[in-house]
Amino acid sequence: MTTPSYNQLGIVKRSIERADGAVAEKLGQLGSATVHEAMGRMGLMKPYMRPIYAGAAVGGTAVTVLLHPGDNWMMHVAAEQIQPGDIVVAAITAECTDGYFGDLLATSFMARGAKALIIDAGVRDVRVLTEMGFPVWSKCISAKGTIKATIGSVNIPVLCAGALVNPGDVVVADDDGVTVVPAADAARVLEVATKREALESEKRAKLASGVLGLDMYNMRGPLAEAGLKYVD
Amino acid sequence: MTTPSYNQLGIVKRSIERADGAVAEKLGQLGSATVHEAMGRMGLMKPYMRPIYAGAAVGGTAVTVLLHPGDNWMMHVAAEQIQPGDIVVAAITAECTDGYFGDLLATSFMARGAKALIIDAGVRDVRVLTEMGFPVWSKCISAKGTIKATIGSVNIPVLCAGALVNPGDVVVADDDGVTVVPAADAARVLEVATKREALESEKRAKLASGVLGLDMYNMRGPLAEAGLKYVD
Amino acid sequence: MTTPSYNQLGIVKRSIERADGAVAEKLGQLGSATVHEAMGRMGLMKPYMRPIYAGAAVGGTAVTVLLHPGDNWMMHVAAEQIQPGDIVVAAITAECTDGYFGDLLATSFMARGAKALIIDAGVRDVRVLTEMGFPVWSKCISAKGTIKATIGSVNIPVLCAGALVNPGDVVVADDDGVTVVPAADAARVLEVATKREALESEKRAKLASGVLGLDMYNMRGPLAEAGLKYVD
Amino acid sequence: MTTPSYNQLGIVKRSIERADGAVAEKLGQLGSATVHEAMGRMGLMKPYMRPIYAGAAVGGTAVTVLLHPGDNWMMHVAAEQIQPGDIVVAAITAECTDGYFGDLLATSFMARGAKALIIDAGVRDVRVLTEMGFPVWSKCISAKGTIKATIGSVNIPVLCAGALVNPGDVVVADDDGVTVVPAADAARVLEVATKREALESEKRAKLASGVLGLDMYNMRGPLAEAGLKYVD
Amino acid sequence: MTTPSYNQLGIVKRSIERADGAVAEKLGQLGSATVHEAMGRMGLMKPYMRPIYAGAAVGGTAVTVLLHPGDNWMMHVAAEQIQPGDIVVAAITAECTDGYFGDLLATSFMARGAKALIIDAGVRDVRVLTEMGFPVWSKCISAKGTIKATIGSVNIPVLCAGALVNPGDVVVADDDGVTVVPAADAARVLEVATKREALESEKRAKLASGVLGLDMYNMRGPLAEAGLKYVD
Amino acid sequence: MTTPSYNQLGIVKRSIERADGAVAEKLGQLGSATVHEAMGRMGLMKPYMRPIYAGAAVGGTAVTVLLHPGDNWMMHVAAEQIQPGDIVVAAITAECTDGYFGDLLATSFMARGAKALIIDAGVRDVRVLTEMGFPVWSKCISAKGTIKATIGSVNIPVLCAGALVNPGDVVVADDDGVTVVPAADAARVLEVATKREALESEKRAKLASGVLGLDMYNMRGPLAEAGLKYVD
Repeated sequence: MTTPSYNQLGIVKRSIERADGAVAEKLGQLGSATVHEAMGRMGLMKPYMRPIYAGAAVGGTAVTVLLHPGDNWMMHVAAEQIQPGDIVVAAITAECTDGYFGDLLATSFMARGAKALIIDAGVRDVRVLTEMGFPVWSKCISAKGTIKATIGSVNIPVLCAGALVNPGDVVVADDDGVTVVPAADAARVLEVATKREALESEKRAKLASGVLGLDMYNMRGPLAEAGLKYVD
Repeated sequence: MTTPSYNQLGIVKRSIERADGAVAEKLGQLGSATVHEAMGRMGLMKPYMRPIYAGAAVGGTAVTVLLHPGDNWMMHVAAEQIQPGDIVVAAITAECTDGYFGDLLATSFMARGAKALIIDAGVRDVRVLTEMGFPVWSKCISAKGTIKATIGSVNIPVLCAGALVNPGDVVVADDDGVTVVPAADAARVLEVATKREALESEKRAKLASGVLGLDMYNMRGPLAEAGLKYVD
Repeated sequence: MTTPSYNQLGIVKRSIERADGAVAEKLGQLGSATVHEAMGRMGLMKPYMRPIYAGAAVGGTAVTVLLHPGDNWMMHVAAEQIQPGDIVVAAITAECTDGYFGDLLATSFMARGAKALIIDAGVRDVRVLTEMGFPVWSKCISAKGTIKATIGSVNIPVLCAGALVNPGDVVVADDDGVTVVPAADAARVLEVATKREALESEKRAKLASGVLGLDMYNMRGPLAEAGLKYVD
Repeated sequence: MTTPSYNQLGIVKRSIERADGAVAEKLGQLGSATVHEAMGRMGLMKPYMRPIYAGAAVGGTAVTVLLHPGDNWMMHVAAEQIQPGDIVVAAITAECTDGYFGDLLATSFMARGAKALIIDAGVRDVRVLTEMGFPVWSKCISAKGTIKATIGSVNIPVLCAGALVNPGDVVVADDDGVTVVPAADAARVLEVATKREALESEKRAKLASGVLGLDMYNMRGPLAEAGLKYVD
Repeated sequence: MTTPSYNQLGIVKRSIERADGAVAEKLGQLGSATVHEAMGRMGLMKPYMRPIYAGAAVGGTAVTVLLHPGDNWMMHVAAEQIQPGDIVVAAITAECTDGYFGDLLATSFMARGAKALIIDAGVRDVRVLTEMGFPVWSKCISAKGTIKATIGSVNIPVLCAGALVNPGDVVVADDDGVTVVPAADAARVLEVATKREALESEKRAKLASGVLGLDMYNMRGPLAEAGLKYVD
Repeated sequence: MTTPSYNQLGIVKRSIERADGAVAEKLGQLGSATVHEAMGRMGLMKPYMRPIYAGAAVGGTAVTVLLHPGDNWMMHVAAEQIQPGDIVVAAITAECTDGYFGDLLATSFMARGAKALIIDAGVRDVRVLTEMGFPVWSKCISAKGTIKATIGSVNIPVLCAGALVNPGDVVVADDDGVTVVPAADAARVLEVATKREALESEKRAKLASGVLGLDMYNMRGPLAEAGLKYVD
């Protein structure tokens, strides 16, 4: 069996095709908002996913893990599949706010080369994680611990906070949220996002000088056509 | 037509009566909690409105804008109506978490003299906005972009996060939230709030010295009358 | 009457048995997550309870107060019952987001020796509280003030954010949340938590060196037995 | 004083200008969705406002009341201002889920001729209210009672569940939610809504016969122009 | 060991002192709102606890069960402790929306004489439960099943939806919510509630005849004293 | 192009492989909870998805549609792709509570043979939909209308309320929620679910006769082994 499908429990897929690490890194520098725009405004996780500290910004390749409510056993299984440059994306089979991840797992993940964790549940030891510089985007923060009783899966497609993540996809996360780029689209999206970013610099300078978006984007005509009326 | 009513779409009112800028500035220094008390505990937006970074505190005059879900076209129209000292207050016609505002619009707003944005929806580019020192109070943070397809209105009365805001009203925002003061009440509220603040300094000194509120406010009698019983 | 029961209004219990202050202090250093684990994963408040600033960490003994929605009168009554090393735990008889507590009350609480406030409602003046170094864990932040009209109780058992707190219990609060330890269990929990912490240091070193949790915890056998399959 | 402003406490306005009762009745028959469309998609309360039983549908003129959290004193003051055909609209100065209204007040409101209650808080005795046929749209249902300690206002403009309601405005409520029509716009909105409704009957018949909206609304061209592609 | 404390895992207490069944039954007939008032407005669970079908109303004695997230093993242990007239109250050690209970368990509970289930989590098979006439008050409805892997406790004090429930306490549940009456207070509360109910009948008749609460409760004086002003 | 990927905008896929309609129908009769169990407790949408009326229960094949916030244009495009026995599954690119669907679209969908709508947003005209017998499972009910301005896609994979739905998959919806079965697994899941259902009938009879789950499932040994203790 080589292509585990979504919904399959008890599977660890060892060989996954990762997007190019350099591309992932560059997408990370462009940021979740720019990349999300370059994707055609797709691929964004729900806005409840927040970083545990401000200022973190990463781009990496996804190692996915599917866990059960209140059970973090598969986190240890996932650790072994991490390669330098990976970002672990953790989904839960039901809504849960428990703290699945703390400084011990972070130590192990960092030793394997992981750049971050994205988890649709809770995380703990956030002060230590902040000191370690290991960023986590999560649904909440909770000291509530978990058990290790039920198996899930590693490196199957998962649904995390409203986004589909396939193992090897690019994950871009920063203060604005988390965007997922399918591995096959990564190069193309990087190209579009880079162009977009270049244009933004020009626009920024014009706007800073006092030029209005109304004029810079030639919006006055379309607005009038749409019926906009100015009154005093 | 000179007085656009609440609910009117497709209108930009150019001439609005702003509260006195110096009064707005002073109300900003007194803070949202003190001003809200001085208003008779009215005028506060819902507590889900949070600043994108800690420590920002502003007082300014409202330029209002009414937008549609997922559409930030009118932000550019609002930019032109900004005068130095204004705070843009953005309401949406339905619940929406999209990121309506980022660093480009912030650049334009700052160039026009805006002091802040208050938006009952999402905002993005928050790291850059923080570096720029442009504060935003919003319902959430989201990298989700918006389109420019439908017209709304500028400088009509809007309902934003549970508060009615008329163009020209004073908006006071800080780490405690956002309070709105009707332009006509601004001077009177400033007076009440200033007195309240002065009294607070005295009280603070007493309480710091170990005097109890029970004694300072003469509460022991009323509490006993209300039936409070001490037991061991 | 010496043992006021849960649900009793209009009572202030003056003499309560506090857990040992040194034990409370040490539990505070171990942190909410470790203590919660040592309790058998019990005693944690709901994860919506968040600190008003990052980095605060305390352990102390509970003075409890039961308040009505929108009414903070009993806060002043509670102030008198505070002894050095106490943490005030405030519950409300119904859901409320008002700002029950600001810098004046904090000044009074600090003068009495309180280490923190835990409140299942809102708090305000958070910038000043941060400057004062008085930490608060709350459901929300709100500038909304309260009245002083109805009596509640002080030092009765209260339900706060999903946890039962008896006066004198140990309260441990940090960036991960708030854990409550019954006074009678404090010494035993400290022992368990201290051992747990000691073991964590060893584990951390191993994991940092690249040893996997899979091997350190001997998980490979149980995982295979549970049916976990590796595929390529 | 004849025009109490929004935010004013302690005022009961006795003489208000009600929209035409027959117009309100007809708008009620057209329903909240149709009326909301006829308003230009404005005036709708937040969707968390739900009826306590299915099938209720009303249109009436607003008597407004502003209450404090956990305090329903002004409900009795409002009762006296009710005239046959009125709908009471209750706003709270802060978020609250208490049950402000039960079968006793409903008996009084019905005796005065009220058609319904709209309240941005909780309600109780819902089984009896259902048997009485007195419909309520509320944020929640709660057995939690309230006190009578603080005065608010009656017949001032209020913000209820995200909508501005002036005394005398038309309120339309049914299973789809609650729409508010400014009294001055009621006749015009009725005209637009009635036309819209007439057109809908025709459309319904066509669609039932198998005609597609794509063809009935001539959407195929615009969709192709917008870039829609059909693939196999 | 005879008095298991809150927070104790792995305990089933077989002999509990139940409140008088006839008293529980009568409290059930008075309803959650009246009983909650008679308790001094205490003992109410959070309003998110809703019945799976309208019109159910019960009063019974509590058998409590503490479960883990996603694990309903202890439900079967609880079943054996049920006696006719009991209501099972289920708390979870962390927030969970899984469907812990369906028609099979309901069949077993009914065979043991249980009158209802109160659960701070999800329930499923709600159509069948409705047909069986077995009422459930729950946080949500969810088809999500649970495992049977970890032990909890039966008949220890539990915190359920914001209320403390001791085994043997009276539970009153209807369309307005769920109220808990400590076993020791049941007789006294019944007396107060019965009187209250009797008075309500008189009041209802007066209000129906058009007498205003303002007059019936002599509120006009206190309102004027509080500063209420009538304007035209 | 024949296999549009998730995230692709502006595509309508006309030829999709539907699961066997008879299998879908039978899965619908088994219900969302049983099918979800037979799937290994996977495939369930979030529990916030609720039917607009009680008692509806369907099984059908998915026609998927991806829409933008506040824009229901693609609903009309989806209508043309409906075949008898289909269930339309509507996802939105961002969170939205607008009412995307009312009685006109329902008339069109029914004329095409659709059995139901599943939508991760709002719906309106619910009283008429109930009378028509066209069931909808939605996030909320809202009278808020939508515009027709931006294209999305039809019959691409969508993420709806936390579940991945491919066009042609089986959708099972009833009072317990919505479960999705991949088309390729439908026959196998039906087999497992049917067996499970058969066993449940036997179990139900035993439990009704008073046999405890403890004995029927032989749980006493494992519980004792796990450490469960009985006390008096």
